[in-house]
Amino acid sequence: MTDSLYSTSLRTHMAGGLRTEHVGATVRLAGWVHRRRDLGGLVFIDLRDRQGVVQVSCDPETLSEEAMERARRLGAETVIAVEGVVAARPPDAVNPEMPTGEVEVKAAEVVALAPSETPPILVAYGADEELAAEELRLRYRYLDLRRQELQRNFQLRHRVFQTIRRTLDELEFVEVETPMLTRPTPEGARDYLVPSRVNPREFYALPQSPQLYKQILMVSGFDRYFQIARCFRDEDLRADRQPEFTQLDLEMSFVKEEDVWAVLETVMATVWQQVAGRPVETPFLRMTHREALESYGTDKPDLRIPWRVHDLSDDLGGSEFRIFRSAVEEGGRVRGICVPGGSELSRKALDELDGLARGVGAAGALWTRLAEGGAQGGFGPKISAEELTAVSERLGASDGDVLVVVAGPDRVTSPALDVVRRHLGRTLDAVEPGDRFLWVTEFPLFEPDPDTGEPVPSHHPFTGFDPGDLDLLENDPLAVRSRAYDLVYNGSELGSGSIRINDPELQRQVLEVLGIGAEEAQRRFGFLLEAFRYGAPPHGGFAVGLDRMVMHLAGGSSLREVIAFPKTTAARALMEGAPSPVDDDELEDLGIKLV
Amino acid sequence: MTDSLYSTSLRTHMAGGLRTEHVGATVRLAGWVHRRRDLGGLVFIDLRDRQGVVQVSCDPETLSEEAMERARRLGAETVIAVEGVVAARPPDAVNPEMPTGEVEVKAAEVVALAPSETPPILVAYGADEELAAEELRLRYRYLDLRRQELQRNFQLRHRVFQTIRRTLDELEFVEVETPMLTRPTPEGARDYLVPSRVNPREFYALPQSPQLYKQILMVSGFDRYFQIARCFRDEDLRADRQPEFTQLDLEMSFVKEEDVWAVLETVMATVWQQVAGRPVETPFLRMTHREALESYGTDKPDLRIPWRVHDLSDDLGGSEFRIFRSAVEEGGRVRGICVPGGSELSRKALDELDGLARGVGAAGALWTRLAEGGAQGGFGPKISAEELTAVSERLGASDGDVLVVVAGPDRVTSPALDVVRRHLGRTLDAVEPGDRFLWVTEFPLFEPDPDTGEPVPSHHPFTGFDPGDLDLLENDPLAVRSRAYDLVYNGSELGSGSIRINDPELQRQVLEVLGIGAEEAQRRFGFLLEAFRYGAPPHGGFAVGLDRMVMHLAGGSSLREVIAFPKTTAARALMEGAPSPVDDDELEDLGIKLV
Repeated sequence: MTDSLYSTSLRTHMAGGLRTEHVGATVRLAGWVHRRRDLGGLVFIDLRDRQGVVQVSCDPETLSEEAMERARRLGAETVIAVEGVVAARPPDAVNPEMPTGEVEVKAAEVVALAPSETPPILVAYGADEELAAEELRLRYRYLDLRRQELQRNFQLRHRVFQTIRRTLDELEFVEVETPMLTRPTPEGARDYLVPSRVNPREFYALPQSPQLYKQILMVSGFDRYFQIARCFRDEDLRADRQPEFTQLDLEMSFVKEEDVWAVLETVMATVWQQVAGRPVETPFLRMTHREALESYGTDKPDLRIPWRVHDLSDDLGGSEFRIFRSAVEEGGRVRGICVPGGSELSRKALDELDGLARGVGAAGALWTRLAEGGAQGGFGPKISAEELTAVSERLGASDGDVLVVVAGPDRVTSPALDVVRRHLGRTLDAVEPGDRFLWVTEFPLFEPDPDTGEPVPSHHPFTGFDPGDLDLLENDPLAVRSRAYDLVYNGSELGSGSIRINDPELQRQVLEVLGIGAEEAQRRFGFLLEAFRYGAPPHGGFAVGLDRMVMHLAGGSSLREVIAFPKTTAARALMEGAPSPVDDDELEDLGIKLV
Repeated sequence: MTDSLYSTSLRTHMAGGLRTEHVGATVRLAGWVHRRRDLGGLVFIDLRDRQGVVQVSCDPETLSEEAMERARRLGAETVIAVEGVVAARPPDAVNPEMPTGEVEVKAAEVVALAPSETPPILVAYGADEELAAEELRLRYRYLDLRRQELQRNFQLRHRVFQTIRRTLDELEFVEVETPMLTRPTPEGARDYLVPSRVNPREFYALPQSPQLYKQILMVSGFDRYFQIARCFRDEDLRADRQPEFTQLDLEMSFVKEEDVWAVLETVMATVWQQVAGRPVETPFLRMTHREALESYGTDKPDLRIPWRVHDLSDDLGGSEFRIFRSAVEEGGRVRGICVPGGSELSRKALDELDGLARGVGAAGALWTRLAEGGAQGGFGPKISAEELTAVSERLGASDGDVLVVVAGPDRVTSPALDVVRRHLGRTLDAVEPGDRFLWVTEFPLFEPDPDTGEPVPSHHPFTGFDPGDLDLLENDPLAVRSRAYDLVYNGSELGSGSIRINDPELQRQVLEVLGIGAEEAQRRFGFLLEAFRYGAPPHGGFAVGLDRMVMHLAGGSSLREVIAFPKTTAARALMEGAPSPVDDDELEDLGIKLV
């Protein structure tokens, strides 16, 4: 069946799709020379197309001398067409590593359709050959994309996209395309600006997200919207960021948190089941932001590592050991984790934890090994036997475990214990297999600006908040609990969303807390505020970073493995050479010039 | 079933989905006040949601005085929640014009969820009320989008998109996203440029189409690619253009024309059948570019009008009537159409044809009425009886018909007869109903630049051509027949495509004809030319303008009716106010300043 779908004027079958059921069939194939082996008389060509590779045997008995000669001269990556008959391989020639390994094609004709110079990077790597340098592979992306691993990633990405859209379509979501040429509304990251030729001295901005438009669509009565949207951020790039990225964007009217979560759970479970064949339990676990920080030290805990952070202040706050006592006296806490079986770690490995903790701002991390009913090494000998017993009981620790403790204010103990937990989880192979999804809820509405201490939005200024916290808005804004939520997968944030504000007066109050006056608000998102005056339904939504999600599903570690034509960390496209200088007269047409 | 899909924390059913089967059910609804009628005691509210409108009756017998009071004060477009019981309307109160017209909801509670000021434009137009001015409707797009007609257009658009993707997925096409931040390669229209902050003095361009990338994907072995892609053209806008538009983009490897056509025929027939419920016959009719111009005077003939253009030069080239004779003597032709039943047209209506013909560059259009075996009025009396007989026979004309004739070189007779044909087709109601798809093939590879006469690409410089015309490439390039094809629907171009060049040497020759030297070629699309050196398969593809396609399916006449947030013809977004000025320091960051 597949074959008839793929058949074209230039081929009858896919090379990679041939199996024993095709034996005896006359086929025309077209693809690339993956490898060629010349055995004197016989020539074997591994012919590659999108489906895979099949062996083509060229035998002087059945092939013209001319065609044999052509076959002998074929270089790697030449595009060829082959006509021949599918034959079963003799039992001793079967290759169990190839899906087509039970058959070969006995060529009756071999023609080169397009030549190839010697490729600057390999497509057919041997088992022990290393990939070429990434810069070179990005430069010749069209060759690197021929590799089986990347072909598989993009098939996966395709399948994820189709599954998401089909699922949301079945849930009565309507796909709407929002503009790419939008109003500059600087917030968070920087906009990419686009000068207008028709309206000189004016600029569009490429969207950082369709946030304002999707809220407008709810005001417009669309009820359920989604879009797989390209978004842009003109930021100094980190290794795992791209200037343009793809997000699943959705919004729903007349909903509360549970409604949005149920949709996302259906989408994720369907994708994981249908694309990866991995069933996922729903509903997902839920945890408030406060709980997550308390038990895991982070707002994106990797639940595959079972260890939890515990508060040991009651047990150690009165200790003779000064570090613990003074931390609590100064208003901080002593917190720790039990690392089961951690005693197998070398002293050197344990001492490295201190550096990890310092790296995120803590004074250090202390450890001790439990053995023979006591504590050996590290802080163990410095606390009393009663304190050790209390701590061990609280942590459920026993001989062979290691205790790791960090003291100080929460803002440093949390990240320190998070990094220690993740590090030791990997080191000790304590990361359980599986797909652990988690909703983290009730994020604070604001967080203090690291420089000024002034409240800035934790998510964005349109996030709704707990009506019970209305009083706090003026008096203690940093304590206001928002209605924002993140979806965390195996310790990585897949996306975030919230129930939005739909009351223009509440929106005004929030903007005031943010120091955004009426005039600035009008300039930046006046059209949304205005829309709210004409019947804005309660609404909320979500956005999923699809590049990252596909990367996780592909088991990869770089976004560049799942984006067809990625940019480097310097925001450059090495294959096509972008960005690039342009002629002055083109700029003149736009009413701008270089400084 | 639909109801459970739509139910959320704030509603159990959709207002527009209630039918007699729901009678007796207690429902919670949420939506907008479409209309309110206050009958003294009773208050009737038409409650609108995405599914439609249902009547809610508020009766002091069953509703608290407080709730009655609220109901009485509800203004249009207020967002409300209603709880109540679905009841059958008495027979004399059934409204057959409403899908929900057999039921109403007897309210037990009515609550306003969000207020609305008096809307500046209507949502619920009366049967005899005219739409507000388009500028005002674009300014308040969120209100205009609530109109049933627009809601229906975007449901249709959604359905078209899902159907296209599903069909191509079934045909083993892989969706790949190509970059939006690309290399500036000025050709045809102007690029929108995007200054890079990370790489000052350099610019990205927004893509006019994914053309280069999709060819690269074929070189990369993707075999079958598609994308619903946003494209950009910074052009002075005409009424039916938008600066950003959406196209279905696809490309296939190892194909000839027939393979691409078969895919598009499947896509179109599936969409027309499944979305519009209109079966379409495949394969579509095919016609060379030459035939189309000869028989219809245009490369996008509307086949719903059955009249064809005929060459009357043999019949009238020797006529005493100077206009005909001199046209032929000067190397032109006399061409005409028979308009069946055209005699009913007034003399004024017929004389207007002359202006239409002049408008497209012809010297004029001549007509005569056939009646009583002779010709009356217009050019009829000026030609001989034999000439009239010959012409009538060639055109298959008889009494009651009108003959319209244009003389001169083809470049003016073709557009003149095209415009006359379309005009009279509409005027005489001779446009047959139906969906007439047509492939127009073998476009010339080049056309003369209107100013310089030099060859410029009819499509784009990567279009393949008939190998039989290779000799002409140097000597008579304007005669080379390309492998480009258009898909025409009811006289409108839906899209175009071609089999591409995949041979770097042939590509070089074509670029040379276009006066594009090696250096310029390298600068503009060097990466594609380089890719061709490493095994480029034979490939071809197509692009469909989806905005226009959806407009046709919606039976609309403006792209702005099928684009959620369109720009005006001045490339302005009136709702959000884009483009707009930006602060100087933002420009400074980008290394540019205003001239």
